[in-house]
Amino acid sequence: MKKCCEIITIGDELLIGQVVDTNSAFMAEELNKVGIELYQITSVHDDAAHIATAVMDALSRVDVVITTGGLGPTKDDITKHVLCEFMGGHLVPDASVEAHIRDLYKNRPEVLNRLTETQWLVPDNCTVLPNRVGSAPLMYWQTPEGKQLFSLPGVPYEMETAIREQVLPVLQKENTEQITHRTIMVSGIPESALAIHIEDFENALPENIHLAYLPKNHTIRLRLSGYGVPAERVEEEQQKLIALTHQWLIATEDKPLEVLVGEKLKAAGKTIATAESCTGGKLAMLLNKHAGSSAFYKGSVVAYSNEVKEHVLNVRKDYLEQYGAVSEQVVAMMANGVMKLLDTDYAIATSGVAGPDGGTPAKPVGTVWLAIANKNKVYTECLHLRGNRNTITDTAATLALVRLLSQL
Amino acid sequence: MKKCCEIITIGDELLIGQVVDTNSAFMAEELNKVGIELYQITSVHDDAAHIATAVMDALSRVDVVITTGGLGPTKDDITKHVLCEFMGGHLVPDASVEAHIRDLYKNRPEVLNRLTETQWLVPDNCTVLPNRVGSAPLMYWQTPEGKQLFSLPGVPYEMETAIREQVLPVLQKENTEQITHRTIMVSGIPESALAIHIEDFENALPENIHLAYLPKNHTIRLRLSGYGVPAERVEEEQQKLIALTHQWLIATEDKPLEVLVGEKLKAAGKTIATAESCTGGKLAMLLNKHAGSSAFYKGSVVAYSNEVKEHVLNVRKDYLEQYGAVSEQVVAMMANGVMKLLDTDYAIATSGVAGPDGGTPAKPVGTVWLAIANKNKVYTECLHLRGNRNTITDTAATLALVRLLSQL
Repeated sequence: MKKCCEIITIGDELLIGQVVDTNSAFMAEELNKVGIELYQITSVHDDAAHIATAVMDALSRVDVVITTGGLGPTKDDITKHVLCEFMGGHLVPDASVEAHIRDLYKNRPEVLNRLTETQWLVPDNCTVLPNRVGSAPLMYWQTPEGKQLFSLPGVPYEMETAIREQVLPVLQKENTEQITHRTIMVSGIPESALAIHIEDFENALPENIHLAYLPKNHTIRLRLSGYGVPAERVEEEQQKLIALTHQWLIATEDKPLEVLVGEKLKAAGKTIATAESCTGGKLAMLLNKHAGSSAFYKGSVVAYSNEVKEHVLNVRKDYLEQYGAVSEQVVAMMANGVMKLLDTDYAIATSGVAGPDGGTPAKPVGTVWLAIANKNKVYTECLHLRGNRNTITDTAATLALVRLLSQL
Repeated sequence: MKKCCEIITIGDELLIGQVVDTNSAFMAEELNKVGIELYQITSVHDDAAHIATAVMDALSRVDVVITTGGLGPTKDDITKHVLCEFMGGHLVPDASVEAHIRDLYKNRPEVLNRLTETQWLVPDNCTVLPNRVGSAPLMYWQTPEGKQLFSLPGVPYEMETAIREQVLPVLQKENTEQITHRTIMVSGIPESALAIHIEDFENALPENIHLAYLPKNHTIRLRLSGYGVPAERVEEEQQKLIALTHQWLIATEDKPLEVLVGEKLKAAGKTIATAESCTGGKLAMLLNKHAGSSAFYKGSVVAYSNEVKEHVLNVRKDYLEQYGAVSEQVVAMMANGVMKLLDTDYAIATSGVAGPDGGTPAKPVGTVWLAIANKNKVYTECLHLRGNRNTITDTAATLALVRLLSQL
């Protein structure tokens, strides 16, 4: 039987918008990989009745409930007390948790105080799982009905370690239905036109293979999910989809664009640099985000001011004056300039009007020039993007990687 | 009476972890500002029964329910149909929505097709609010019990515009309880030690003023929230808190660090640049994230490879060989190098081992040197951070801004 799970994220900070819940997406992905379907995510306040109701409701719907947050030593964190009482237990000191916490802070004795000491109190009716990287104990209960309840810290690094090292091994002990995802990525066609183009394919899909559209920054990922069917069967459908969309196809794997770019550069033994004006370091960050990027990524110049474009990237001053910073001429010189300065095989450059100010009738907000250079030629393109400052720079960075990928 | 709200985010992509829900935090913050308390966030599948149950449950608990997502033209998007049926309506064509969509795509006729055309079908029993920046109509219902239901697109830019221009004006027509937040930020003290330090203050707070701890990247924001009390009363408590924590105090406003840094630099007429190795462009992105940053931010060099450190930033080769890239000597030269190259008044430089590879016994993963230079001196510091690649670089970038702020 397919196991179903719910996540309950606990914390006032989520409900006043001071913190974006990135934990749920991480957990969802990890649970999915091992064939556990996430049914619902619920975010609730640091409030005893609210937490208890949410846990009770979730346990009535699914097999596994995971809570995150509310395990800190301070007064506003009450998850441990609430779950302990809800499950009918009492808090008692735990010697191994105490030893772990004392060890964790052996070089920072100032952290050990009477609030920290409450962290080694644990419910007497739960299994304490080790939190290798933090002080809050991980708690695990099984209900008389055979349901499973986990309580994890909200600190992303501690939660991630707990999921990978403790929760998934417990959950994987039992058989679960296989979920297979296969994803392709396309660019250059609107979502609705794509949907019409592949309508017959979609209608012919078997009941247990589902297609989802995931549009983002002018790319669309098409994800096929097979429930309880062999991976080969899902791959068969993926092949049909690839054949149907070949003219817009960018990728046949569900990997971030920057990873695909990195793999291609590494395989070819080539290096890259970026010269960024409007994207302001976004491309740099994407390219060095993943471990091992030093094999292909050398560095970047964020040339926000014209002085930097001129003096560091050797963009001609008369070009800046005649054509403006947001122009084909300047962006091409930026790409060539950084390629030469950092001695790389490829370079990407961007210059645009990200807004909200700075637009003109000739170059309204959303006008972005991008250039992709190699030793032989420079490709340039003018994008006309919609959205706010963040959307425009995100889309420009994404499309720069899309264009580079198709040239590699 | 205080108005209570719930958000329901709809989409399979949220529950398999392909998309992080950033919409909820945005809406939570905007709702809070106008005195509407967010009680719960629920994320559900693109599934008719699940959506209907979630909406029904939420309407039974609170006064206002806002759904996002599931309004696209493709087959997997069903929110409009489900809500229309749930509210007892029928879909009918809407001439003004049709005119808006035709206008929106007048330069992209290829987007207009029979799927797009379904977007101007709307429930006959709702108020259609204009979606200025997208094609999906915004829907608004009032129930016989006086409750309010809004359905918004999941595309962040469209949702944000809808909230600001349409939803908040509707909600603000009625009186709501005043919520006042006042936040301070501290750094350099563990959360539990801080909690003990301010325990008497916290215990003496009146019932309707609440204190929350929001730790992140070695900083802690302390947020006071007053419900139905005058702002002055909350500010009085904030002043006590400032007096109690002055030795760790970084900020007395709830603004991002990079905004506070930008304001101080602008006020002083000074400029800044960054030279980044391990932070890889994160500082650049933070400094140019907000409109108007060109007044103080000139640019950055992301010096990922040693060659770039040497040839672009003029770091001495013998220093790189003798001390290594992650060293006080090198990071100081990086800061001075970029300050000179980009002709700025200040510079920040970072060089560290972000992991997961590259650690040594002398310089384990998490070792980060940072430097902050001005024309007269260079401040350097060695950080010993825990966490994964992302946590380490985030914390390093945050602490660099904290140190800079205290020097401005």
